[in-house]
Amino acid sequence: MSENNDSGKATISMGASTKQGYEIAEKSREIVKSLINAKTKDLTPEEQSIVERIVHSTADPDYADITRISKNFVTESLRAIDQEKDILTDINMVKTGINSYSGRVDCYIRDERAVKIAKKEGITRAAAAIRVAAQEGFDGIVAVGNAPTALLEVLELHKTGEIKLNSVIGVPVGFVGAAESKQALKQTEIPYIITEGPKGGTPIAVATVNSLINLNKGNKA
Amino acid sequence: MSENNDSGKATISMGASTKQGYEIAEKSREIVKSLINAKTKDLTPEEQSIVERIVHSTADPDYADITRISKNFVTESLRAIDQEKDILTDINMVKTGINSYSGRVDCYIRDERAVKIAKKEGITRAAAAIRVAAQEGFDGIVAVGNAPTALLEVLELHKTGEIKLNSVIGVPVGFVGAAESKQALKQTEIPYIITEGPKGGTPIAVATVNSLINLNKGNKA
Repeated sequence: MSENNDSGKATISMGASTKQGYEIAEKSREIVKSLINAKTKDLTPEEQSIVERIVHSTADPDYADITRISKNFVTESLRAIDQEKDILTDINMVKTGINSYSGRVDCYIRDERAVKIAKKEGITRAAAAIRVAAQEGFDGIVAVGNAPTALLEVLELHKTGEIKLNSVIGVPVGFVGAAESKQALKQTEIPYIITEGPKGGTPIAVATVNSLINLNKGNKA
Repeated sequence: MSENNDSGKATISMGASTKQGYEIAEKSREIVKSLINAKTKDLTPEEQSIVERIVHSTADPDYADITRISKNFVTESLRAIDQEKDILTDINMVKTGINSYSGRVDCYIRDERAVKIAKKEGITRAAAAIRVAAQEGFDGIVAVGNAPTALLEVLELHKTGEIKLNSVIGVPVGFVGAAESKQALKQTEIPYIITEGPKGGTPIAVATVNSLINLNKGNKA
């Protein structure tokens, strides 16, 4: 069930690393498929596997209704992952959940520079942390699982050409600004995955990244 | 919005550490209250604040319907936190989300002994990690945000007197075994919080622990 294990067994295992874990993951996969098959029938197999993993991680089939994936998201994300480009997360919980990636996973929310910028400019630390990443020359996939302000900062830096992006996993959560920040992402040309409305969160961001990592492993196998 | 920041501002801030973050958290709190007030009116103020934080973290008011808290849960948990007793988590994502605790937060899922036990006995690593914690003399609050097998292991070790517990945050997620493991916890005399059915997850576990930490800070202030 874990989004927090190493795994060799690519797309089916969903993070399981033991026989019992593997059996649970397989049973869960069947149940998830039966619950959301009708809702995901127009998606590509890769997109389906991402949505399956999100529903597996949350036990919430609603995510099959509210997840939106841009046409170029899977291709652009897999290209970045295959090239081992960086993954940037808004908070450390998302970073902790991504643990079988051969590239770098960064989060600057506890970086002193982020703390300083946040204080000086009266913005959230999550937003300031994105600015620090851009200053560090970040280039890759951004995964926002928590803070709408971090997602808005990504869009702002993209507009001014100050951040290099392959794709954005934009699934911040909350009743204040989350839905709006995701709509704003949807209106750009950035390859994206979002969840419509207030729902989202770290498990959704982690499930998406780990699903992409497994899809890339599957492509290579 | 973050479950992942340090914070001095006790119960209201919900993890915010900047002016903007604080304003967002306060607005969110009002919205959450308006959404769930009717559902939580029979809870104590402390229990209400826990449920509010769970709904804030997930943007999912359903959690106000499915969260169950035993009568002695808040008192026993606050006693443990005030004494800075250990908190044990099933996976590292939960541990990462708890970052303003003055006591220890442990997770043994990557411990070599857990890997060995899991392989030898054909159990999940999350369950084996609980056994390692018990062998290490764990005594405090257990927070299971992911693996039903970890929660069942806690109950088994409690039955045989091999683990010392103040309370259990039992919110594993998934369609295979999660609901059953939570029902099993409910039938013990252990002080508990659970979410009925398959839903649960790391944000729920983290929100509960951080809410308790803030309640304890509030009591001292």
